[in-house]
Amino acid sequence: MNDSPIGIFDSGIGGLTVVKEIIRLLPKEPIIYLGDTARVPYGTRDKETITRFALELTKFVLKKKVKILVVACNTISATSLPEIQKVSPVPVMGVIIPTINEALESSRTLRIGVIGTRATINSKAYEKTLSIKDTRQQRGSPKTARLKIVSVTCPLFVPLAEEGLQNDAIQIISDGYLAGFKKTKIDTLILGCTHYPILKKFIQKSVGKNIRLIDSANPTAKALKNLLEEKGLLSIGSVPSRKFFVTDAPERTYKIANLFFDGNFPGKLEKVRLR
Amino acid sequence: MNDSPIGIFDSGIGGLTVVKEIIRLLPKEPIIYLGDTARVPYGTRDKETITRFALELTKFVLKKKVKILVVACNTISATSLPEIQKVSPVPVMGVIIPTINEALESSRTLRIGVIGTRATINSKAYEKTLSIKDTRQQRGSPKTARLKIVSVTCPLFVPLAEEGLQNDAIQIISDGYLAGFKKTKIDTLILGCTHYPILKKFIQKSVGKNIRLIDSANPTAKALKNLLEEKGLLSIGSVPSRKFFVTDAPERTYKIANLFFDGNFPGKLEKVRLR
Repeated sequence: MNDSPIGIFDSGIGGLTVVKEIIRLLPKEPIIYLGDTARVPYGTRDKETITRFALELTKFVLKKKVKILVVACNTISATSLPEIQKVSPVPVMGVIIPTINEALESSRTLRIGVIGTRATINSKAYEKTLSIKDTRQQRGSPKTARLKIVSVTCPLFVPLAEEGLQNDAIQIISDGYLAGFKKTKIDTLILGCTHYPILKKFIQKSVGKNIRLIDSANPTAKALKNLLEEKGLLSIGSVPSRKFFVTDAPERTYKIANLFFDGNFPGKLEKVRLR
Repeated sequence: MNDSPIGIFDSGIGGLTVVKEIIRLLPKEPIIYLGDTARVPYGTRDKETITRFALELTKFVLKKKVKILVVACNTISATSLPEIQKVSPVPVMGVIIPTINEALESSRTLRIGVIGTRATINSKAYEKTLSIKDTRQQRGSPKTARLKIVSVTCPLFVPLAEEGLQNDAIQIISDGYLAGFKKTKIDTLILGCTHYPILKKFIQKSVGKNIRLIDSANPTAKALKNLLEEKGLLSIGSVPSRKFFVTDAPERTYKIANLFFDGNFPGKLEKVRLR
């Protein structure tokens, strides 16, 4: 079981930002990654459709005999985690709770912003998880009673990031989405989509340099490491196998994926059919 | 047979620009429309995936006992028309030939630009169809020997149009894609994607006012009318039924679709599963 792979999936290739951190923190772990590049983006679709797609991804990854499932996608984590947990015989972790924990540690004012896809923001997953934490923490610390969440959808950030564009047009679109944050007095902004770190410099400029940006990659990798340690599931091998699958466009996807890894993408990309 | 509906499908809702023209030219025709909003966009995907998706759409529309199939999508028309024709017992028409005919009529210099999705441009469908026409026409008219095609991919235009954004960011992106056309001396530019008419004013500004823009909607509706007349298939009813199906997000899609029809969308949108 320990040398079984970690199963990671995403609607596309954004989840590779999480994989990169997992490899950094857990270099000995075998990995299976699946990105649904034939149907990306998920964040513009209805919950029912996202859940149906996500369960197809889950089925594929579970067949690879993984020891744990990491949902490296905010949209799927926000809309479909209970449904995935229901069918999975192995532990399932999403990106939202680890990211929220990091944001709560970072924030002093407890005014926290969240940006994400339409599906993520409409699900109110961040608000719901934060308010549960808030109720729990109020008993211990009066400070948390002031917790305030401000959320904004940024539907064009995913296609902009996927196209690798880096020009003034992005700054205009980013300012349009995010300029309102300046009035909200948040001190921490959650990048609630695994694609958004690619546009970090534009986002930072739109909200101003005093707001700290928190993304899902490092918090999720840290939480995964803790969970594997806790359950005694850390790999004891030394030359881990890493396999990457996509449902469409492996050549073009490889080029973009390789950029995420500064030219050192840790494997090949293989095209697969889910059904 | 005459009162059977015209079957029209698209990867999403761009094909409704074609439907609008069909209703204008053929107000008595019953219509079945299907948009694959669960998997849009198609234009970023590989040919094999687009063909697989397109055959699923074809199967659904054929079950509705249509008298003709209109592929109201440049990407599917460019990549998968022969495969659709192979399985269809009724005539199938795409948008490319009607659009090309219109462009050839419009152009004086016979230098013609084409813009489209990555799949459309990579397929070289416009070049191939135009060069066949060119060879045929050379025999009659030496003028056509000069025919020259310049094509450019505009991958972000679909998500930008879908989001309904209308600001300077689009002009910057449009200028980035299209400024090169100024040097090519084209006099006609084919908008080779049914979404692009939504961004017409930005496109026109990028290429300059001397280039005539040709879109697929009117030429395709005219060609459809001719074909139905020729085959004696025009409807003889008077109160046509029009049915619109999408595979995801009917409410949000309705709002955007309604904009295409200036607030008078000619029916309801029903969500369906293809499998």
